[in-house]
Formats: sequence, C-alpha cells, structure tokens
Amino acid sequence: LKGKLYAIGVGPGDPELITLKGFRLLKEVDVIVSTRSDQETESPALSIIRPLLESPEVRYMEFVFPIKGRCQIFMDLWLQAAEKMHSLIEEGKEIAFIVSDDPVVHSIFIYLLDIMEAEYGEIPLEIVPGINSFSAGASFIKIPLVMDNENLAVVPPTVTAEELKGILNNFDTVAIINISSKIQYILSILREQNLLESTYFIERCQENNKYNEVDLESLGEDKTADIIIVKT
Amino acid sequence: LKGKLYAIGVGPGDPELITLKGFRLLKEVDVIVSTRSDQETESPALSIIRPLLESPEVRYMEFVFPIKGRCQIFMDLWLQAAEKMHSLIEEGKEIAFIVSDDPVVHSIFIYLLDIMEAEYGEIPLEIVPGINSFSAGASFIKIPLVMDNENLAVVPPTVTAEELKGILNNFDTVAIINISSKIQYILSILREQNLLESTYFIERCQENNKYNEVDLESLGEDKTADIIIVKT
Repeated sequence: LKGKLYAIGVGPGDPELITLKGFRLLKEVDVIVSTRSDQETESPALSIIRPLLESPEVRYMEFVFPIKGRCQIFMDLWLQAAEKMHSLIEEGKEIAFIVSDDPVVHSIFIYLLDIMEAEYGEIPLEIVPGINSFSAGASFIKIPLVMDNENLAVVPPTVTAEELKGILNNFDTVAIINISSKIQYILSILREQNLLESTYFIERCQENNKYNEVDLESLGEDKTADIIIVKT
Repeated sequence: LKGKLYAIGVGPGDPELITLKGFRLLKEVDVIVSTRSDQETESPALSIIRPLLESPEVRYMEFVFPIKGRCQIFMDLWLQAAEKMHSLIEEGKEIAFIVSDDPVVHSIFIYLLDIMEAEYGEIPLEIVPGINSFSAGASFIKIPLVMDNENLAVVPPTVTAEELKGILNNFDTVAIINISSKIQYILSILREQNLLESTYFIERCQENNKYNEVDLESLGEDKTADIIIVKT
C-alpha cells in the first residue's frame, strides 16, 4: 500500500491543545476524515480543528451514523467506510482520521481499524496521541489528578454501582468521564460514599472550549457535568 | 501580581508532541524554568523542547535537587525556588515552568505550587496539559488503551502486590508507569496472575524519543521497560 493512515487526537476542544505533530499532519495530508451522528450538524472533531485550517472542507470526507439502529446497519456503514478509506490508501493518499481527545482512549477509531485490518490486512498506520479530557479538565480547574505515588482510575459512567464503590475505595483519584445523562446515578453513589465534598464537577463549555468547575448545587435536569474528578 | 505562571506539560519526549498552546507560550514567556537532579546534566523537559526554540538558555533558569538527602534540604531548596519564582512574577514576568508529560499526573510542579501558595497566597496561574506517557506508549505501539465502556487504571510501580492484584482483577486495562528498577517485582506479579501473554512492555528510546515495544524475553538486569500496559 502506497498511502498511509494517521489517527490523530485533536484534543479536548481548545484548538490550541492539538499537538504540533497533529497540526502538521492535518496540513500535509490529502484527505481529512471524521465521523458524526445524524443528530449532529458537524463532526465534533472537525469543529475543533476548523479554526486552524483554511477551508478544510475541500479535502474533507465524513461518515454519518444514525444515533440508533440495528447492529447490522452500523456494521454495513463501518464496512463501507473501511472500503472507502482503504481504496484511498491504495491510491497512495495520506489520510488523517481525526477524533476528539485521544485516539487510544474510548475512541471509535479503533473499531474502524479493526474492520479495515480484518478486511484488508495490515494498513500503514501511525497514531498521534491527543490530550485527554480528564487531563484538560484537571488543568483548567488547576488541580492535580495524581501526585507522587498516587493511582488514578478512569471510568465511564456505565460502571456498575458495586464496581464504582470498589474503585472509590481503592484509588486516590477517580475520573469519571463522558457523564452526560448519568449524573444523578453517579451523584447518588458519591453521596452514599460520603465523597461529594472532595469531588470536582467539570463541564466543557461549548462556546469557548474551556472547562469550568460547576457547583454541586447547580447540577440537575438542565445542567450536567462532563467530567467528575473524585479525590478519595 | 502583575506576572503570570504557566505550568506547561511538554509531553512524553518527541518535541512534536507538545501542544500548540505550550509551544506558543514557550516562545512568548520571559523565563523558562525547569528542575533537574544533580545526577542529570540537563533537565529532561529542557531536552525535549530544545529543538523547538532558538537559544532557550538565554532566558532559562533551573533548580537542581540532590538525588538523595534529608527532607529539610529539599524543603529549603523548594522554598528558595518558590521565592525566586514569586519575585519574578512580582516584577511582572511571565514564567513557563516546564515538566515532561503532563503537569497534572505525578509532576513535581504541584509541590512547587503548594509551597508558593502557602508562602505567598494565590498566584496568577494557568496549567497547560501535556500528552501522557501512557497515551504515547499505546499510540506508538498502535494499541488502544481502552475501548467503549472499558475502565483504565494508571498506577505507579510502588503499588503493593495485594493492591495490584486487586486492580488487575477489576480493570480492563492497567497502565503501570515509571517502572525502571521495579520491573522484576511487576513481572513476578503478572506471572503469578497469568497475565504475561496479554501484557505490552514499552520502552522510551532516548535517542529518537520514540516508544518501542520490548520482548518479554529481553527484559532483565540490563534492560527494563518504562511503561507496561496490561490487558486483563
């Protein structure tokens, strides 16, 4: 294969939090690829890099996925995406597949890669890491995630109550990410474990791409947190 | 206070893995500050950014710490560092305190900040996150850290055997970082838990700042791993 695939983490939202390498590759590649749901008007990763590039749309390609649907529909769409990308790489094109945050943490890029490799064998590939939302969240509110010999757990909100209690008991810092609608569930566990006072609630502000601390009192039906950092 | 302190994560080694924001600030600030041990000829963070800047030494300041010594010696040195930095900020200087990887994960910056705030009150501060070694390691060897709803533990090698076994039992991925001399201890636990086959050993190559996978067989007295990623 003559071309190459780059998986690039564009970071947590602020366009300036992409790496120099990610930015250089975005300028150099032939095609920039991303995905979005059919409920989104623009790919979140494209929105992040848009201020950095002149007319990215002229060499931009996206794959749109329904927000709900049978598994087979998704598989067909992924297979089509894999085929399209593989044929570009075969033509010698360099492709940047962009994702928010970091390609190695909870990113859909890995699915695409698995499918491409299952269908077509090994792909010339480089992964460019990105700043994670939990690092950015802690940085913006000026707290350490972990110091010295402390250990860190990063968990999605799908964790069971039993699991989360165990993790809260055994880790110095627990970052719960991609919270959205699960906030009340997480709050109930933290309340039960008497940890609300040592918990930081962080929201990503869509307008300016910064992360802000949110008061516990303001969390509710209208307002949620994107990241929770618990100091146990 | 008229000046400002920036804590900047310069990433895991490759100078191109600093963020655009970190790079911009390094060019803009009046003083770049870092620390090194008295066994090191140069600060590791300075080595990382050196290729990016013209003559950084003309506005560079460093604090040197002995590798061993009584606690009081360290405290005195930190107090001197805090005083020096505070007086620069008082003069209106913008200072970039640089650390490898990420300032919010196991970085000494937080000690300095604690001491400065205890001595002088709140400091105008911004923290710029950096790429973590565990993200970089996984990216370089092209594996996901976590997919979908998986949870991730990041632990230092000072973890007790009992703790580590519990963590290996309860997490999908366990990244053990800053391994160095503790490799045999960690290997013995992974062997006992029958996890060696699903473990990735990663070394940071000093010459080219890349991360490479290392064979289990080659690990020994002469060769260690810097990061271990266990898929449980």
